[in-house]
Parts: sequence; C-alpha cells; structure tokens
Amino acid sequence: MNNYQEMWRTLGLNMEAHDQLLQVLPPTYHDVYLTQANRPQGMEYFDFVVNEIHGLRIQELQEHKKAGGKVIGAFCVFVPEEIVRAAGGICIGLCSGVEIGTAETEKVLPRNICPLIKSFMGFKLGKVCPYFESCDIVVGETTCDGKKKAFEILNDYIPVHVMETPHMKKNRDRRLWLEEVRDFARVVEKATGHTITADNLAKAVQEVNNKRRALQRLAELRKQDPAPISGKDSLLIEQIAMYDDVARFTAKVNALCDELEEKIKAGQGVFPRKTPRVIVTGTPMAIPNWKVPHIIESSGAVIVAEELCTGLRYFENEVAEDGQTKDGLLENLAARYLGINCAVFTPNTGRMDRLLQLVEDYHADGVIHCALSFCDPYAVEANRVEKTLKQHNIPLLKIETGYDQEDSGQLKTRVEAFIEMLG
Amino acid sequence: MNNYQEMWRTLGLNMEAHDQLLQVLPPTYHDVYLTQANRPQGMEYFDFVVNEIHGLRIQELQEHKKAGGKVIGAFCVFVPEEIVRAAGGICIGLCSGVEIGTAETEKVLPRNICPLIKSFMGFKLGKVCPYFESCDIVVGETTCDGKKKAFEILNDYIPVHVMETPHMKKNRDRRLWLEEVRDFARVVEKATGHTITADNLAKAVQEVNNKRRALQRLAELRKQDPAPISGKDSLLIEQIAMYDDVARFTAKVNALCDELEEKIKAGQGVFPRKTPRVIVTGTPMAIPNWKVPHIIESSGAVIVAEELCTGLRYFENEVAEDGQTKDGLLENLAARYLGINCAVFTPNTGRMDRLLQLVEDYHADGVIHCALSFCDPYAVEANRVEKTLKQHNIPLLKIETGYDQEDSGQLKTRVEAFIEMLG
Ligand code: SF4
Ligand code: SF4
Ligand code: SF4
Ligand code: SF4
Repeated sequence: MNNYQEMWRTLGLNMEAHDQLLQVLPPTYHDVYLTQANRPQGMEYFDFVVNEIHGLRIQELQEHKKAGGKVIGAFCVFVPEEIVRAAGGICIGLCSGVEIGTAETEKVLPRNICPLIKSFMGFKLGKVCPYFESCDIVVGETTCDGKKKAFEILNDYIPVHVMETPHMKKNRDRRLWLEEVRDFARVVEKATGHTITADNLAKAVQEVNNKRRALQRLAELRKQDPAPISGKDSLLIEQIAMYDDVARFTAKVNALCDELEEKIKAGQGVFPRKTPRVIVTGTPMAIPNWKVPHIIESSGAVIVAEELCTGLRYFENEVAEDGQTKDGLLENLAARYLGINCAVFTPNTGRMDRLLQLVEDYHADGVIHCALSFCDPYAVEANRVEKTLKQHNIPLLKIETGYDQEDSGQLKTRVEAFIEMLG
Repeated sequence: MNNYQEMWRTLGLNMEAHDQLLQVLPPTYHDVYLTQANRPQGMEYFDFVVNEIHGLRIQELQEHKKAGGKVIGAFCVFVPEEIVRAAGGICIGLCSGVEIGTAETEKVLPRNICPLIKSFMGFKLGKVCPYFESCDIVVGETTCDGKKKAFEILNDYIPVHVMETPHMKKNRDRRLWLEEVRDFARVVEKATGHTITADNLAKAVQEVNNKRRALQRLAELRKQDPAPISGKDSLLIEQIAMYDDVARFTAKVNALCDELEEKIKAGQGVFPRKTPRVIVTGTPMAIPNWKVPHIIESSGAVIVAEELCTGLRYFENEVAEDGQTKDGLLENLAARYLGINCAVFTPNTGRMDRLLQLVEDYHADGVIHCALSFCDPYAVEANRVEKTLKQHNIPLLKIETGYDQEDSGQLKTRVEAFIEMLG
C-alpha cells in the first residue's frame, strides 16, 4: 500500500504508529480468513476490501471530500445513515475492534472500561485511523455510560454531535427519539450544506433498504445445512457493510448470494452436514475483532447467525418506504431505529423473543453469549438471556472477553467443551 | 439488640448471615467514629441511630405497616420522597455500602460491576437487610447501565417500579421526566391506597424542604475554620437522612447546629485552625462506607463538603413551594430533581460549576475525586473534573476504589502525599 503514504501524511496520521498497525493486520487476516476451506469465490471482493482497508476506500472518501462532500462517522447502529446519504454525505462506522494507543488512552479514560471505547479513543488520540481523520463530524449517542461520557472527552479533539437515545420504548420515548432524529437531519443539513427533501430521503431509504435486503438474503441462505458460508466470512461482510460504498457493496453481496444458491442446489457447503450450529449474541464485534468466531469455527462448530449490531441487528428491520413527505419518512426512520434490540434498553424483551425465534429458524444447537469486558448492559442482560434459554432447554455458553489474546487458550477450552456437549 | 430477634425472624431474614453482619459493624463504627476527638454532643443521637440501625427504626417501619402504611425503597436521590410521604408512605434509601453475599450475587451479576450494585443485590439475595425486607415495592431508575439492568433481575425477587431518568437536560427531557414523575405519583397512589392531593403534597414538600434546610444549615457552618464538625460525622448525618424519620431527623440536625454555632462563637473546632481543607466529590458513599473519608481525616486533613449524592446533591436544591395545585407541585418536584448534577447526564457541566463554587465558598485547599470501581459515569467524568480544576489551579487527587479494604494502605499513602502537598 506504499502508494497511499502521501494521502496518509496529508490526513495527519502518525505514520510510525500507523505502519505498525498495518503490519499486524495482514498476518492475522491470513491466519483467520485465508486458511478456511471451500471459501466461496464471491469472498474475493471482501478480501480485496480488507486488503485496501486504509487505501482505496480512504481514497474514495478523499475524492468525495474534494468534490465538496462530507464524511460523518458513527459509533452505533442507532445513527440513521439514510439522513447522511440524503444530504449527499457518506456515513461510516467507526466502532473499533483493536487495542491501540493504550498508554495515551489511559491518560483520559479509566483502565477498566470497554475495549471498544478504549479503541476509538486510542485511534483518535494516536491519529492512526484514516477513517476517523477523514470525518468532518462524528455522531455519538447516549446509549451506554462509557460511550456517552467518553464523547464529552472526544469532543475536545473532534466535533461530536450527540443523539439522545432513550432507555425505554414507551410512547414518550418514541416522541423524544423522533425529535432527536429531526435534530440530526438539521445538523446534517448544516454540516453538508444540502437540504434534505422527500425525494433524496426516499432514495436514500431505498438504497439502504436494498443493502439490508442483500444482507437478509445472505442470512436466509445460512439456514441451510450444510452451511453455505462460514460465520467468520459472514461477520466480515457485516463489518464491511458499515463503511463500504452502499451500491457496490449491495451488488457484491447479491452476487455472492447467487453463487451460494448454486452451491446449495448442488448440496455443497463449507462445513460437513450435521456440524453443530451455533448462534452468537452480544456486543458488537468491530473489525478486526474476529477472536471468538475464529475460536468457535476452529473448534468444530459453525456460526449460523450473529444476533449482534455487526449482524442481524444492523439489517433485520427495514425502514417503511411509504412516507410521502420528508417528515413522514423521518417518522419511519425513527420507528425503524427504535426497533433495535440493544441491551441499553430496559427491559429488552424483544431480544429474548428474537433469540428464541432465531434458534428455531436457523436450527441452532446452542447459543454463545459474548460480551466485551466491562460492558454492563450486555454482561448484566446475559442473565436474562440465560433465564430465557434455560426455560426452553437451549444450551448457552457465556463469555466475557476483551481485545487481547491472553485468554485465548482458556476460551478455546471452554468453547470446545461446549461444542462437544452439543454434538 | 437481642430483643429484635423475633422481628427479624418475622421479616424472613437469614438469621445467621444477619448476625455475622451485625458483628462486623460495631467495631468498625467504634474505630472510625467513636475515637474522634472533640465530637459535638449532638452526635449522640446519630450514634444511637447507628446503634439501632436494624432495631428501633425497623420497629417503627413495622408499626407503620401494621397501621396500614406502606414502605417504599429507593436506590437513587432522583426518586421524589415527597410523593411517597404525601400518600402516607415512608420512603427509605437502600443504597448499600458493604460487601455482602458476593458468592450468591456473582451467580446473577458480572464480577466486574460497581460494588454498590453488588451490595444491594447481595442484601436482597442473602435476605440480610431488614429495610429491604420491609419494602412493599422498590423504585429503580434508568440512571447508570449497571443499576438499570440489575433492576430487571431484582424484579424477579421484589416488585420494582422503574422511573426513566433522562440523560440530557433539554426541554424534551424535562417533559419526559415530568411524565415519569406523574406516573410515579399514580404508582404510589395505587400501592398505598391513598390519593395524593394538593394539600398533602404541599405538606410533604415543606417537610422534606425543612430536612434539606437543616442539612444546608449544617453545611453552611462547615465553611468556618476551625471546622466545627468532622467530615465523617457530617457524612454520617447525610447517610442517616435517607432512612430516618423526617421530622425527628430535622429537629436533631437543627439542635446540632445550635450547638455548633455556640462552638464557633467560642472559636472551638474539631481540628486545629489551618488544617488542610478538602472537598470530596464523586459516587455516593452509602452507609457504612466510610473508607476514604476515614483515611483522609486520619491523614491530617478535614473534609469540609461532600459533592456527593450522600451529601450536597441530596439537599442543595429545594422544591419550589408555590405550586397551588397538585399538578403544579408535581412540576416543581420534577424541576427540582432534574437539577441534580449526576454524572449520568451528558454533559454535566453543572457539576463543574458547582465544584468551583464550592472550593471558593468552603475555602478548600484541594479536591478528592472518589469513584467506586467500575463506575463508568463518574470514572470517565473524572477527566472533566480534572480539566476544570487544572484550569483553575486547584489540586486534585483521583481515587477509584471498592468496598474491600485491600487497597487501604496504598490509598493512605496517596492521600497522605496529596495532603502533604496542600499543607
Ligand atoms: S450494542 Fe447498542 S450501543 Fe452498541 S452499537 Fe449496538 S445499538 Fe449501539
Ligand atoms: S460493548 Fe457495551 S460498553 Fe462497549 S460500547 Fe457497546 S454497549 Fe458500550
Ligand atoms: S450518583 Fe446519580 S445514579 Fe447515583 S444516587 Fe446519585 S443521582 Fe442517583
Ligand atoms: S456508583 Fe456509578 S455504577 Fe455504581 S450505582 Fe452509582 S452511578 Fe451506578
């Protein structure tokens, strides 16, 4: 990626730290991804995207900016991408999945905090993420305590607009959230200098819905036995969904699905028939956090669905396309986003119902609950998941882990024992 | 306290575990409290209350219940006590300050969670708190992630009504909170069988305001040098405020203030003049958590104010008494409670302004920020406190600690070095 050095320098990256980061990624990716057997051909595109993760896509963002476009970063799937697109902006997910700049970060954040939060702060303080450095503004939210409060600090380094996500789903919360969505539209209009209209918003809604439908189609195919694609590959696609070009990404996912449909007809898959089937649920797994999925799929099971924000929660609900006016569409957007089953809500019974449905639909043999260390919303809600699954005699393994690899051996032992039990 | 055995048994307490708990308290109390020099006479009452902590006050609650009254427990100073009183109920604070039933608790909660949350869950699961067991319902809130999610679990053991506290202080949040306060009034009316009227609510507002005024009067006297009362004694009074009889407590605090005023006139105090003066700020210190204050005041400084929920945040704002109607009073209540500077709000600039004002008003030499372990709201906001105080050249020491005594030695070293620097 030597031809991007100039671009990275212009972006103000810390070149030395950034080099180190880039050196870590390729071997990890090779070991986790490229050694998989029977990978679909259509994964080539996604391999290419990862290979160009700080290259081609950043170049595209820079070209977009040179043409007067804006880039808006987000840390949560609650931020309505459609609004950014309607105003001609590009919305990218910044949820960060690697330990970085820990020494710097611990000067401003407590040591015992969720690694995802540490990671995004580390990327910003260390100036090693070209996505972050491409952003004109970033959008925070009041979801979990750690993020909510960290945005106050982040705002010292980059302008942060914070959306207030409510913590219940009563009518009064829907009203509050709709007002937040309307405010966000105004903020985006101001930042981009473009007016959001019923037309451009309807178009954006349709485009993002098409992305969701492609991902739904892929998810649907994973109900088959043998599994036509690995959970790791699926997760990768879901991670890339957060920052790739929407139309190109949608086309590539659909092309992959065409291929998988053929394979399914031919009775082919990536794991033997009757491989134990697992659903993963919990906190987001931001790129390049593939730790637990890699352990699971190298221990004799296949992941058939991710009840995660880097997974089903990102694409399972569509925005209704029937709003005739701008405000009607904003209402549809607000309603769709408040349908997300995040553990910051109390209660979050929708997630329990969804999990039971997924186990049935995907013929899963068990569920693995993964919470990032120090994540109170998910670590505490794990108890509710446990209670629900126990009532239905569905095996559950609960994991809490961070981004370091220190506990890998111990995790592998626990995961193997769990899968043994399912088999 | 042997004469209370029957009462405790009737309450369903785990007698063995409860005995163990009661055996720990008196020696701690003796060492921390009764060894202080020059204590005001008026502390006798509060010593008596602690001595009877599971005795006389519980008996009063039981008598209240026998007469048809209800007891409602709360975990946060956001729950409007006035509403409970208006309906003839008794509202008690259940925020728990001691490690208890850890093994049981860690079956339902993650290990790495705030000790206050672990404590209240431990008290409930272990059946060792006669206050908890006296409650007809308890009131939760959506303040921090840990509590918000733990209430879902607690609801398996006792009915929990959750108030949705917003996370910002915009007009839309004020509207939402007012609706929550109105709902709470309805819940309390239903639970108690009593209608809340403009009259009984006005009376309750006045009574609780009088409690606040007595505490404000005490706080005011602590601006003097030499300090007329220790920070430990003041904290104890503020802790007792949460569960004692309102009228009696108010009278006792005022009597103490009368005594202190005499002492001030005579130039007397509990520490020598020019003792370094410290303000403590951070997470609540629930009874019997006196760990850090004890370290501070046995290291050569005096605490002159607590910017805590067991401190100024509990009583610094009064409810406006001018509401003529029930709804007017509910509006006044909602407005007063949303004035609390809790770190779960973003931003929480009110706390920064308040701290600066307190340092000036109380002639403080430095500030000690105490956050309970794993408390994201306060641990992250500590960075904002640090930034603010640095801008004004006010010395700050940041502490994160739990309920265990393992780090006492290390804390004492740090606190001593800090006070040395102030002196
Ligand atoms: S888990 Fe919750 S806070 Fe995190 S990205 Fe998903 S919706 Fe947002
Ligand atoms: S994983 Fe949990 S603690 Fe971390 S950002 Fe998401 S909700 Fe917050
Ligand atoms: S610190 Fe916040 S959550 Fe805790 S008691 Fe105070 S107001 Fe309530
Ligand atoms: S101390 Fe912090 S984590 Fe603990 S209950 Fe209070 S706000 Fe929540």
